[in-house]
Amino acid sequence: MVKISLPSGDTKEYSNKISVLEVAKSISPTLAKKAVFATVDQVDRPLNFVIEQDSNLILHTKEEQVSLNSLRATTAFFLGKAIKTFNSEAVLGDNNFSEDGFYYDSDIATGQISVDQLGEITDLMGKELSTKAELTSVYMSVTEAIDHFKDNEYKVGILKELKNDHVYLNSWNGFDDFSLVPLDVNYEQIKHFKLLYVAGAYFLGKSSNKMFQRVAGTAFFNQNDLDEDEKRREIARSHDHRVLGQQLDLFFVDPKIGAGLPYWLPKGATIRRIIERYIIDKEVADGYEHVYTPVLANLDLYKTSGHWDHYREDMFPPMDMGDGELLELRPMNCPSHIEIYKHKPRSYRDLPLRIAELGMMHRYEKSGALSGLQRVREMTLNDGHTFVSLDQIQDEFKKVLKLMMEVYHDFDIKDYKFRLSYRDKANTEKYFDDDEMWNRSQAMLKGAMDDLGLDYYEAEGEAAFYGPKLDVQTKTALGNEETMSTIQLDFMQPERFELTYVGADGEDHRPIMIHRGIVGTMERFVSYLTEIYMGAFPTWLSPVQIDIIPVNNDLHRAYAEKLAEDFRKSGLRVQTDLRKEKMNYKIRESQTQKIPYTLIVGDKESESGNVTVRRYGQEAQDTMTEAEFIQMIRSDIANYSRES
Amino acid sequence: MVKISLPSGDTKEYSNKISVLEVAKSISPTLAKKAVFATVDQVDRPLNFVIEQDSNLILHTKEEQVSLNSLRATTAFFLGKAIKTFNSEAVLGDNNFSEDGFYYDSDIATGQISVDQLGEITDLMGKELSTKAELTSVYMSVTEAIDHFKDNEYKVGILKELKNDHVYLNSWNGFDDFSLVPLDVNYEQIKHFKLLYVAGAYFLGKSSNKMFQRVAGTAFFNQNDLDEDEKRREIARSHDHRVLGQQLDLFFVDPKIGAGLPYWLPKGATIRRIIERYIIDKEVADGYEHVYTPVLANLDLYKTSGHWDHYREDMFPPMDMGDGELLELRPMNCPSHIEIYKHKPRSYRDLPLRIAELGMMHRYEKSGALSGLQRVREMTLNDGHTFVSLDQIQDEFKKVLKLMMEVYHDFDIKDYKFRLSYRDKANTEKYFDDDEMWNRSQAMLKGAMDDLGLDYYEAEGEAAFYGPKLDVQTKTALGNEETMSTIQLDFMQPERFELTYVGADGEDHRPIMIHRGIVGTMERFVSYLTEIYMGAFPTWLSPVQIDIIPVNNDLHRAYAEKLAEDFRKSGLRVQTDLRKEKMNYKIRESQTQKIPYTLIVGDKESESGNVTVRRYGQEAQDTMTEAEFIQMIRSDIANYSRES
Repeated sequence: MVKISLPSGDTKEYSNKISVLEVAKSISPTLAKKAVFATVDQVDRPLNFVIEQDSNLILHTKEEQVSLNSLRATTAFFLGKAIKTFNSEAVLGDNNFSEDGFYYDSDIATGQISVDQLGEITDLMGKELSTKAELTSVYMSVTEAIDHFKDNEYKVGILKELKNDHVYLNSWNGFDDFSLVPLDVNYEQIKHFKLLYVAGAYFLGKSSNKMFQRVAGTAFFNQNDLDEDEKRREIARSHDHRVLGQQLDLFFVDPKIGAGLPYWLPKGATIRRIIERYIIDKEVADGYEHVYTPVLANLDLYKTSGHWDHYREDMFPPMDMGDGELLELRPMNCPSHIEIYKHKPRSYRDLPLRIAELGMMHRYEKSGALSGLQRVREMTLNDGHTFVSLDQIQDEFKKVLKLMMEVYHDFDIKDYKFRLSYRDKANTEKYFDDDEMWNRSQAMLKGAMDDLGLDYYEAEGEAAFYGPKLDVQTKTALGNEETMSTIQLDFMQPERFELTYVGADGEDHRPIMIHRGIVGTMERFVSYLTEIYMGAFPTWLSPVQIDIIPVNNDLHRAYAEKLAEDFRKSGLRVQTDLRKEKMNYKIRESQTQKIPYTLIVGDKESESGNVTVRRYGQEAQDTMTEAEFIQMIRSDIANYSRES
Repeated sequence: MVKISLPSGDTKEYSNKISVLEVAKSISPTLAKKAVFATVDQVDRPLNFVIEQDSNLILHTKEEQVSLNSLRATTAFFLGKAIKTFNSEAVLGDNNFSEDGFYYDSDIATGQISVDQLGEITDLMGKELSTKAELTSVYMSVTEAIDHFKDNEYKVGILKELKNDHVYLNSWNGFDDFSLVPLDVNYEQIKHFKLLYVAGAYFLGKSSNKMFQRVAGTAFFNQNDLDEDEKRREIARSHDHRVLGQQLDLFFVDPKIGAGLPYWLPKGATIRRIIERYIIDKEVADGYEHVYTPVLANLDLYKTSGHWDHYREDMFPPMDMGDGELLELRPMNCPSHIEIYKHKPRSYRDLPLRIAELGMMHRYEKSGALSGLQRVREMTLNDGHTFVSLDQIQDEFKKVLKLMMEVYHDFDIKDYKFRLSYRDKANTEKYFDDDEMWNRSQAMLKGAMDDLGLDYYEAEGEAAFYGPKLDVQTKTALGNEETMSTIQLDFMQPERFELTYVGADGEDHRPIMIHRGIVGTMERFVSYLTEIYMGAFPTWLSPVQIDIIPVNNDLHRAYAEKLAEDFRKSGLRVQTDLRKEKMNYKIRESQTQKIPYTLIVGDKESESGNVTVRRYGQEAQDTMTEAEFIQMIRSDIANYSRES
């Protein structure tokens, strides 16, 4: 007799040992159809697991995420088999499932799988799935598994790194593999899957290891979910700055030459350069003094600032210069700007002193967290530090806010909200110890927001240890929240570095420091803009503003080149498309490259000295004189217009 | 009997042992007066050394540089004594002589010597020198000296670091010290010396050691040499970019926060920013594609390029990122630009491909070699790499030369010469192995120079291993030669990185790489300009272009501020001097700051709406309308004029 207790409290009794699937069938055939795997006495088991003694049983059906994991692990199993069938020289490495899908990594010396061959792989999987051969999935200790896979050094390496003490040994038609979850041994449900891409992936995720080839895909329990997912991916791809960055030749990152270290290609570099000049000019006009300070400093500087004690995990390892000096790549620019402040004796007449820089910094991010331009290890921050007296906080805060609003307007950033963070009134001992400074400064920040009529929400207890702050949260096109801008008061660094200024009273006083960033790092800002613009940069930022297409290369080349020369002299960025391609192909290319103005020039234009203009995303064409066109594009640029 | 052989071949015989000075007197009283020390049987000895056996003798007189060394070492000895007299708590450290003078470093906890107290120290030295007490200078093994100085840990530390096995133990009136050369024991000649400055110096030159106080001076055998030297120093000071950099608030370097890592203050940063924008705009207009590439890369990149094998001593230590990755601060930008080239398949239609960047690099320079902005450890290079086919070399070379000439013209650089470096015809096996490439490319460089009618000299055997080159040597205001610009062909890197392009024939070909720099590093270029301009930057580069001085702060402030606002709107850099100082003081200050235009505004100006203009370095003043002035300064800027 075997007694089985179900989560509902019901029990079922069977005269003999019985498989999980049989139990499910005995409860209801529908349930049996929906079951993927089970938990028997707290161990996950496949459906063909045979229960031999009294047990607690939980059946997992396809409505649950854990069942989707099992489905995807099972799909990955068949993918591994298909890779081996496709190329018998392939040595299988790791495979796994995720929220998004699954993948299989393998070491293929010759005959790697191209993206065009994913169809063949899919067909091979289909053939295997149609055989209905028996699939078993057996719970086994990692030690046993290591022995079982002793001929595959990669599988052994993966097993040794595992934190689990058991895995599932899966076998199908002579093909063995292991997984972290029981497979869906009743693999009829594996129909709605799709292989998505091939990529490189380091063995065990370590860049010092061999690069394997990853084949990745996704799987669902029904076609509708797969179709919905495909739509989501399509939308994400059209916004994703990594995809757009590649399509538009903006940048690349190659982990082989340095993970998280982007290379800005000429077009991306042009966008960045325009933004850099724009923000520096804005800030200089607003009273900031721009400086250049070194990316390296003696480690002692970051010991004084406290970064080495509290932030070390995010910092690069120090370099021993051999003469006892340890140099450190800076994780933040504030200590450098403090050194600028300290370089001279300061008086109240110097305040507010506004030091700004496009400051390069380095932060150690785990390689798994790196992503395009959004998460990098080397970055250049639009940074600024203002040194003020307590009573100057409000005016300075307003001034920064006004600058921020102007910049947001120029970049057409509309989707953001303000968060004011205060110290926790109930736990003031957790914060920098100066009640007057906290009370007055918090009131000043709030007052400034009210005076300017800005909407905000207040977050008590969210202030930094060293002072209250305002964060501006933006939403990316993909819906992620990011802190774009920040204004933070800092009572602590001036203490640590013993900063002073001589007041009107002739006495030494301690300034307060305001850390502020308007557009954040160049890397993240450009990734953000790429996503919200979907790659269609406004004319003032576009790396190529005008694309000139002759109707006939031979006949209209001279006029096209004359126009290009005129535009260049007017300071415009122009390209002339003289490839041996059809005009319509070139016009489509112009749209793909999201160039704001496409000019088509033929007989009519070259005879009259006119241009026929088509704006990005519009079907309509306009014919006008060259001078009219220059005036139009110039006003477009001067207005930072996004009408392009 | 003692027989002494002289360098002339003559010998002298004496019946008893005899001192060097007595021998000199016996030859000629004039010689004795001019003698400073002697070499007896190849060991340097002071004049009071007693010769007891047959010897070879060389007398060193004050005409020789080695005698000046002895004089300066002797002066340093008395300086050490004076420091101890001045502050008995001072612990003496190192002292030495040099081409320029001498110094003494000491560890002074309290009561350091200020620059204003150098006169007192000089007086103390004078008193000591006038006593005529006996000075002895005895040749002694370093081991003995260590024992002798065992109570002074610094002296022991210095002695242990010495490469010499002997030193001279010098004693005078109970004061002991050691030196590396025999002293001028007959110290009557020490009259023409001057203490010049006090500074900080690390013990043994290591930044991990304690900072000592250095007192430095110079000494000569006659007043005329001392006066000449003073004049030279004066001229050097007025040109020295380190002195000007401090006077004009351009930059600072603080070894405590990082040796060789300059901080660009707002005014220096303004100059640098203008130059950066200028050169980028110039290059973009000339067909260069500007990029941004990371300062870090996987060390493997520099193994492939060969830098790690051949240039390691100048590179920073690699950083171990913990996951097996070693990251290296780049010593050069070429591998980064090669990665840009490699990012895409290239065809002959892409060539010449011109990649440029203001690329930050790091080079390990010994701390002793560091100097202001001229020799630094972190630098930003105006770098560019063009990828060409062999037959494009000449045109590309000419194009770079033309750009170079335009830039030199705009910065008013006139003192330079061209050097063409070829491989050594007699030792072609020392060079990259491709005769055709060498022969054709050398002929093309020479042909280009001839076509452009440029003067040059040829240096056979001066080419790099990897290709011929052209260097442009400029002279700094201090007469030092520097390589400002360079154009180097490189046959090797394209091989090492296996670069290819598809030719018109459909086959793969190897491009040639041209490394070129126009203005060099921002650091060295600004130091160079500061020196040749003597800090009087032309208007387009001046951090402050206009200084407005109201005749009366109360009465003319409003007009001064209105003007300032107008000028700012015209894109000009302006300051209004509203300090409570006399007008003439402000005008002098304006000259000290070398501001191109000083505007004095009083009743007459504010009533008429005129301005009274005084150009830097001129006494004459001109009165004109505001509009006329704006037009004048704008044309001055547009012409990169140095008439200011």
